[in-house]
Amino acid sequence: MCTAITFATEDHYFGRNLDLDFSYNETVTITPRNYVFPMRKVPDLNSHYAIIGMATVVGDYPLYYDAVNEAGLGMAGLNFPDNAHYFEDVAGKNNITSFELIPYILGTCKTVAEAKKALANISISAENFSKEFPTSTLHWMIADKDGSIVVESTADGLHVYDNPVGVMTNNPPFPIMKFALNDYYALSAHPLEHKFAKDLDLHEYSRGMSGLGLPGDLSSKSRFVRCVFTKYNSLCDKDEASSVNQFLKILGSVEQVKSLCEVTPGEYEYTIYSSCMNQEKGIYYYTTYGNPDIHAVDMHKTDLDADKLTSYKLQKDLEFHFDN
Amino acid sequence: MCTAITFATEDHYFGRNLDLDFSYNETVTITPRNYVFPMRKVPDLNSHYAIIGMATVVGDYPLYYDAVNEAGLGMAGLNFPDNAHYFEDVAGKNNITSFELIPYILGTCKTVAEAKKALANISISAENFSKEFPTSTLHWMIADKDGSIVVESTADGLHVYDNPVGVMTNNPPFPIMKFALNDYYALSAHPLEHKFAKDLDLHEYSRGMSGLGLPGDLSSKSRFVRCVFTKYNSLCDKDEASSVNQFLKILGSVEQVKSLCEVTPGEYEYTIYSSCMNQEKGIYYYTTYGNPDIHAVDMHKTDLDADKLTSYKLQKDLEFHFDN
Amino acid sequence: MCTAITFATEDHYFGRNLDLDFSYNETVTITPRNYVFPMRKVPDLNSHYAIIGMATVVGDYPLYYDAVNEAGLGMAGLNFPDNAHYFEDVAGKNNITSFELIPYILGTCKTVAEAKKALANISISAENFSKEFPTSTLHWMIADKDGSIVVESTADGLHVYDNPVGVMTNNPPFPIMKFALNDYYALSAHPLEHKFAKDLDLHEYSRGMSGLGLPGDLSSKSRFVRCVFTKYNSLCDKDEASSVNQFLKILGSVEQVKSLCEVTPGEYEYTIYSSCMNQEKGIYYYTTYGNPDIHAVDMHKTDLDADKLTSYKLQKDLEFHFDN
Amino acid sequence: MCTAITFATEDHYFGRNLDLDFSYNETVTITPRNYVFPMRKVPDLNSHYAIIGMATVVGDYPLYYDAVNEAGLGMAGLNFPDNAHYFEDVAGKNNITSFELIPYILGTCKTVAEAKKALANISISAENFSKEFPTSTLHWMIADKDGSIVVESTADGLHVYDNPVGVMTNNPPFPIMKFALNDYYALSAHPLEHKFAKDLDLHEYSRGMSGLGLPGDLSSKSRFVRCVFTKYNSLCDKDEASSVNQFLKILGSVEQVKSLCEVTPGEYEYTIYSSCMNQEKGIYYYTTYGNPDIHAVDMHKTDLDADKLTSYKLQKDLEFHFDN
Repeated sequence: MCTAITFATEDHYFGRNLDLDFSYNETVTITPRNYVFPMRKVPDLNSHYAIIGMATVVGDYPLYYDAVNEAGLGMAGLNFPDNAHYFEDVAGKNNITSFELIPYILGTCKTVAEAKKALANISISAENFSKEFPTSTLHWMIADKDGSIVVESTADGLHVYDNPVGVMTNNPPFPIMKFALNDYYALSAHPLEHKFAKDLDLHEYSRGMSGLGLPGDLSSKSRFVRCVFTKYNSLCDKDEASSVNQFLKILGSVEQVKSLCEVTPGEYEYTIYSSCMNQEKGIYYYTTYGNPDIHAVDMHKTDLDADKLTSYKLQKDLEFHFDN
Repeated sequence: MCTAITFATEDHYFGRNLDLDFSYNETVTITPRNYVFPMRKVPDLNSHYAIIGMATVVGDYPLYYDAVNEAGLGMAGLNFPDNAHYFEDVAGKNNITSFELIPYILGTCKTVAEAKKALANISISAENFSKEFPTSTLHWMIADKDGSIVVESTADGLHVYDNPVGVMTNNPPFPIMKFALNDYYALSAHPLEHKFAKDLDLHEYSRGMSGLGLPGDLSSKSRFVRCVFTKYNSLCDKDEASSVNQFLKILGSVEQVKSLCEVTPGEYEYTIYSSCMNQEKGIYYYTTYGNPDIHAVDMHKTDLDADKLTSYKLQKDLEFHFDN
Repeated sequence: MCTAITFATEDHYFGRNLDLDFSYNETVTITPRNYVFPMRKVPDLNSHYAIIGMATVVGDYPLYYDAVNEAGLGMAGLNFPDNAHYFEDVAGKNNITSFELIPYILGTCKTVAEAKKALANISISAENFSKEFPTSTLHWMIADKDGSIVVESTADGLHVYDNPVGVMTNNPPFPIMKFALNDYYALSAHPLEHKFAKDLDLHEYSRGMSGLGLPGDLSSKSRFVRCVFTKYNSLCDKDEASSVNQFLKILGSVEQVKSLCEVTPGEYEYTIYSSCMNQEKGIYYYTTYGNPDIHAVDMHKTDLDADKLTSYKLQKDLEFHFDN
Repeated sequence: MCTAITFATEDHYFGRNLDLDFSYNETVTITPRNYVFPMRKVPDLNSHYAIIGMATVVGDYPLYYDAVNEAGLGMAGLNFPDNAHYFEDVAGKNNITSFELIPYILGTCKTVAEAKKALANISISAENFSKEFPTSTLHWMIADKDGSIVVESTADGLHVYDNPVGVMTNNPPFPIMKFALNDYYALSAHPLEHKFAKDLDLHEYSRGMSGLGLPGDLSSKSRFVRCVFTKYNSLCDKDEASSVNQFLKILGSVEQVKSLCEVTPGEYEYTIYSSCMNQEKGIYYYTTYGNPDIHAVDMHKTDLDADKLTSYKLQKDLEFHFDN
């Protein structure tokens, strides 16, 4: 399915693996401040924070998967099948469709605190974008430089959870997911002592045995646990290259290699792209499954006061760099 | 520690992750046919197969980590601490030091079958390369297009094992390592049926749960198991770009992220480089921890009849590819 | 901590392991119909269903751990530390203290359905039995021949959950516990097929490998999972001896052997007793840690219309049965 | 399959679970000193140490499963399918059939040291006892008060391994089995510290979580690991009742409950009996699957100078001990 993370060195970074079995021609798309976001149930957003992120653009509308705004607030939608539930319109609430939630939050909020306030008055509406693009079953992670939250709309209402780990994957709902970490409390990135049986001669026959018990499969809970372990024990230099590289290594620890995860007979989901957004600088870095080169798009190299979308096609073709 | 694999689509590929806590200025080095390999206990190799591989060159001598020869035979040395044992010279045997084994085998053998024959008459000598470069505790994987073997010199002698899985890591010795795969026999890349308790309503709440139980830590047995699972369930297109990319994805499933594996307090081993050699074409592809771009060196672009080494410095600096 | 289960052949059985690091002189105690149960916040129970169960009798008051009434309704209290929360008295509710809950429910209800109705109007009161016997942090399982429920009073109120598996241990709260079973959906008591890697020769080198992944430690979630697996795959003859014996074998699969579970330095919890109540016949069977002989007390051999408790001291001394 | 263990308090104890899907009318059988053991390939044992143990007696010949002799040497045969290999007669060796090995060793050796000496000159002969009783595929554990060994006759010869843990189950061969313990080195019976991720609030939500990772299934490696953990962390009083009881609890931790282990469709192996022999006193204690009462037979209550077997039928019928 997918994995989203936050990471910080000097700057703050937010991004995700998109794990799916199909692709909708997604592009890195910049929405400038004066592009008019049409809204189904609330007034259109005529002027708003500029946004950069990955989107499928349908008839000039950017269906964002993950994005960051010029104030440094990041947001990503991840698959949440069987659990996501959207509602009939609720009087007295801002009824926002699932595909509008990223534009609405990133367009109007500078921080997680502001997003929380906005969410307190929101109900996720079940309306489709179109017949061709029915709603996806999603939950969302929102992050600024101070922390992150998880937003889950389930049959019993809209939940906003603080996310102390800065990692989100898919099912089960976040409270159960977060609780699962306790089962791994004794694992370590540092050598452990032999405690199994006093008087027996047991030993670490390999480096890394202190992590034995860490799950290695691709299910959402296993990716969550492994990714939290990797992120929290990770060290790197503070410069941009080291930070972005390490961010993508952390996502790499939960990458879905083709064809380890069968969806329907013969169809496999895999990590279509990995993104890393510098929240301070408004730069969107990405790699694709077929091309490990890190490409980048800088929102500040475009006119953020414009009113038209700018899209950058993904560079998916691998080119070897020959040294001779 | 390290992981080596074979992989085949149209062509055959062999390579490895080098996981260490230090680096010896290694370079991609081509040894042409007429470079004289001085040998300590057997006659020098004046003329031999040309070799391309990763090596630390010390005083014009290439200490190879992994390499392939022009006939398509590949070989890599991986860490085998506590188990590797080298011997005093044995009369009637070809006494080959550990650092000479790759040159000797790749210089004189075209196939695994030939390597087996040569190994039948070899004893690994304990002599150091120099005071500054004492012997490493190694075992080796050798592969051609038809299969691979594992070579382990332990206190009870030299063992040559067929390697039906084409994956090798480190400890324990290969027979125990290979046996460990049986414990995972029921895991699958394809959805499994509920069998835990008839009459209970259990289900796969996430894709990928059929792999639950696969180990996710960085110890050598866990990397072995995870890598075999990834390799054997992996599918990709047959062209060179897809093949090399998928090869590196398989190695990526067992990459050691900085700093998940502490060696001594404050020192961590990590995947310094990943290599992928096309055994038919004699091309050496690699990435480094800090630079995901795939670099390549083609042995056939050099004069293979020469008598001097050619070395290519690793391209370790990350460069972002800006799309705007 | 503890494990409670239901089990059915011809008759229905309910019982538990009591896992603790201390013992309060508990006895098998029969409360006849006309014993007056004094109640703290609601009218005393002057006349009620007769009850047989394990209890510490303090000043003629039976503090029940687990019991069954003459109608076949069984109930047990198990440790629920950190999660159990009892309340100040709530107006309009029947405020029942935690130590009164078993007498109240078993005294007044014939079935789980009736217990559910009673619980809908109950708030668990925080009042202690006495200074010497402060409240324990408990949750409860209630079972009749048709099913079972779990009762958890936590900070956000009283929860009554259907328990489709008929097993309960301790932390975490029941919804998370029950969800955890999904992670084991592919395990089986029957041989499984090799699916790890087509073309590799892997096999079951031992009977029972289809259960690999089942947790073997003594934590509450692991006992829950293991006990559900054992119970659901268990077969036995339908007579009383086979049924009671198999019931105790299922509990035996999660027995806490001395001294595998340290509570405070040098103090260990272990399975002090295991009980099995025939819900139809009103017979209380038990074994103690030190005495595997199955002892039994039959409520119908006492005068159920009496007004005084009858207690049977536990037979804790092991006697070998010499055959010569 | 089966599990054998040693255990010591004041006295020394040896015994086993017999896990099978069928039963051969086994009895506790005493072989006195002057019973003539007919031997197929070596001279008959006319006079020997007296033996008590579990045996199927066929035509006055005791086919022992496990036994102890009057000198305190114990021995048990356990299933070793696919690996056990018996040989054609070897000149210059004592060719002993698999069914004669227990009588031969226990009849002629007082200690493990003497057994080792005897085994140095033994080859296990492939001859059947009879058409009706073909050879079983076995390996053996031998124990005295000072230690224990494992005896495995495989295709490459007879191996005698020191057994530092005093536990044996079935496949794989003992060196691989023993090595597997290293993978559990960090588990403990005592609470562990949180080390997963500094700055995260993880905790032991249940007692016993320090054992998380211990395998709970019934395969032979899992039983081995679990049993070693239970034995080595076990504490008990030193008197006979506590010792025998604790011994049976340790075996109980790996008991095979009916019907968790399917052998052929509809046929299940389970723990038919558990034995515990006091090696100093020559007492054979046992329980059967259906009867938890501990029965005992004392060899010293019979005439050990006799020449006829004495057998005691197993007491398999459960009797409840009613307290009222």
